[in-house]
Amino acid sequence: MSVLVVGSIALDHIKTPLEEHQNLLGGSASYASVAASFYSPVKLVGIVGEDFPNEHIELFKRRNVDIAGLQVVPGKTFRWSGEYMWDLNIRETRSVALNVFEHFNPTLPETYKDTPVVLLANIAPDLQHHVLDQVRLPRFVVADTMDLWIDTARVRLLELLARVHMLILNDGEARQLTGETSLIKAARRLRDMGPEYLAIKKGEHGCLLFGDNGQFFSCPAFPLEDIHDPTGAGDTFAGGLAGYLARYSTKVEFGALRRAVVHGSILASYNVEAFSLERLQTVTRDEISERFDTFRRLSEFDAE
Amino acid sequence: MSVLVVGSIALDHIKTPLEEHQNLLGGSASYASVAASFYSPVKLVGIVGEDFPNEHIELFKRRNVDIAGLQVVPGKTFRWSGEYMWDLNIRETRSVALNVFEHFNPTLPETYKDTPVVLLANIAPDLQHHVLDQVRLPRFVVADTMDLWIDTARVRLLELLARVHMLILNDGEARQLTGETSLIKAARRLRDMGPEYLAIKKGEHGCLLFGDNGQFFSCPAFPLEDIHDPTGAGDTFAGGLAGYLARYSTKVEFGALRRAVVHGSILASYNVEAFSLERLQTVTRDEISERFDTFRRLSEFDAE
Repeated sequence: MSVLVVGSIALDHIKTPLEEHQNLLGGSASYASVAASFYSPVKLVGIVGEDFPNEHIELFKRRNVDIAGLQVVPGKTFRWSGEYMWDLNIRETRSVALNVFEHFNPTLPETYKDTPVVLLANIAPDLQHHVLDQVRLPRFVVADTMDLWIDTARVRLLELLARVHMLILNDGEARQLTGETSLIKAARRLRDMGPEYLAIKKGEHGCLLFGDNGQFFSCPAFPLEDIHDPTGAGDTFAGGLAGYLARYSTKVEFGALRRAVVHGSILASYNVEAFSLERLQTVTRDEISERFDTFRRLSEFDAE
Repeated sequence: MSVLVVGSIALDHIKTPLEEHQNLLGGSASYASVAASFYSPVKLVGIVGEDFPNEHIELFKRRNVDIAGLQVVPGKTFRWSGEYMWDLNIRETRSVALNVFEHFNPTLPETYKDTPVVLLANIAPDLQHHVLDQVRLPRFVVADTMDLWIDTARVRLLELLARVHMLILNDGEARQLTGETSLIKAARRLRDMGPEYLAIKKGEHGCLLFGDNGQFFSCPAFPLEDIHDPTGAGDTFAGGLAGYLARYSTKVEFGALRRAVVHGSILASYNVEAFSLERLQTVTRDEISERFDTFRRLSEFDAE
């Protein structure tokens, strides 16, 4: 089965305390579609300007990402600039230029409309709705979001939650959206809003997965010593997760979701080892399997 | 095998946003010794004043805690008063009265001196050294500490680290003691200071365990919705861990330490369900086994 990914495609300018790089491939759909491509065929929906470097198009092609839904239009590609503070946990946005993204009106190619798994990566809820409107009977829909939309598009975001099978957000956003400090209480509130499944990302503390009937999974974080660029970790997580789920032609069960969360975490842990999508371009299936084994050892313990 | 526990014994005054209670049994040795008693015989070392309620002595006796090393002296028992903010994650100390603790000079009864497992629960490093000086060839020594001692007794604390097999501290303290923001780097620095094993507690995010040759265990947190009083969670964790280890007459292996961390986490998760040691007095072996099974389900996932 294949997965449809819609989200932003950007040219990033990123500064960390040690390095600074410009014109990097970025955006939620870039990270998510390349991450998903390790597991399933991907159909990308997005928009770029005429300045978008061909090498990035070639990267999508190399990863067998279907770009029939990628619009290349007159104007400039969406640009984002951010700076990380010394411990890389705090990020400040320096500038945002929507450019061609401002008038993005995604129209799905006919070949996209029956994609069984849909990842609504992080973009405005209006655009997520608009894409979802065009998909016929998707089997599993995952939505990612961010604090910006909770602040500025809350009503549309809440409407979206009623339409998706799974929501992904981070711990701060879960608290922001529900007003609950306890993540366990926040999770119940969020699942009451619609999504059957919920993943709460906690950065260096791993991820919590919630399902029906108290089903719960605590995914550890991979113990990374050196993080070079946290950009796109969440998008990569969502892409790896959705791509893994698209492998399954049967109904999504909680056991498959546990493994999907682990695979999302593995790809995210590789992604932050280098800037932009550099590491996602070199990571191999063997390396993914190796880290999967490490994740299993991280949290295992014998019976009493 | 039995475990020797030295630490503070206090009468606490605790205020949360919902409740306020006075004259509660508290102190690191109280929590730790009762927690350890679920697994192994405990020998308690501590000091209280003549005002110490007999019911608390009876509690220790009921839990088969040996109180030959508990000094009851003229004067008042150590008193601590603290208040928790609305989300229970932030605590402010309102007052501390050392009282009889000020001139505490622990002298071990002869029957204590060959105890194979020693838990130096959270007290001044000088007192931890003094107790350790009197134990003959302990097989496994665990030390707990807190930010106060990192600030005020750093040199003595560093000297202690060279003498113990395992150190327990929380994430903020690990960063404070090493100056490293990465917990992975902080862990390596701390293990270089002496202890072969290290547990870094992360509150609602669980606990990390580090050993030789990159051995690593990430223990999830039990998903608690309602926490009534976080006081003593860390002491209970340390006590459960040390008590569980004392079950083993052979050399401590990393596999046993993984389970010990889980048992410490289980008892801590019960402890915060009520004020003082109330919950530790009612929790049963069956409940502990039940939560052990839950911990196993929390983090398990199948092979790819």
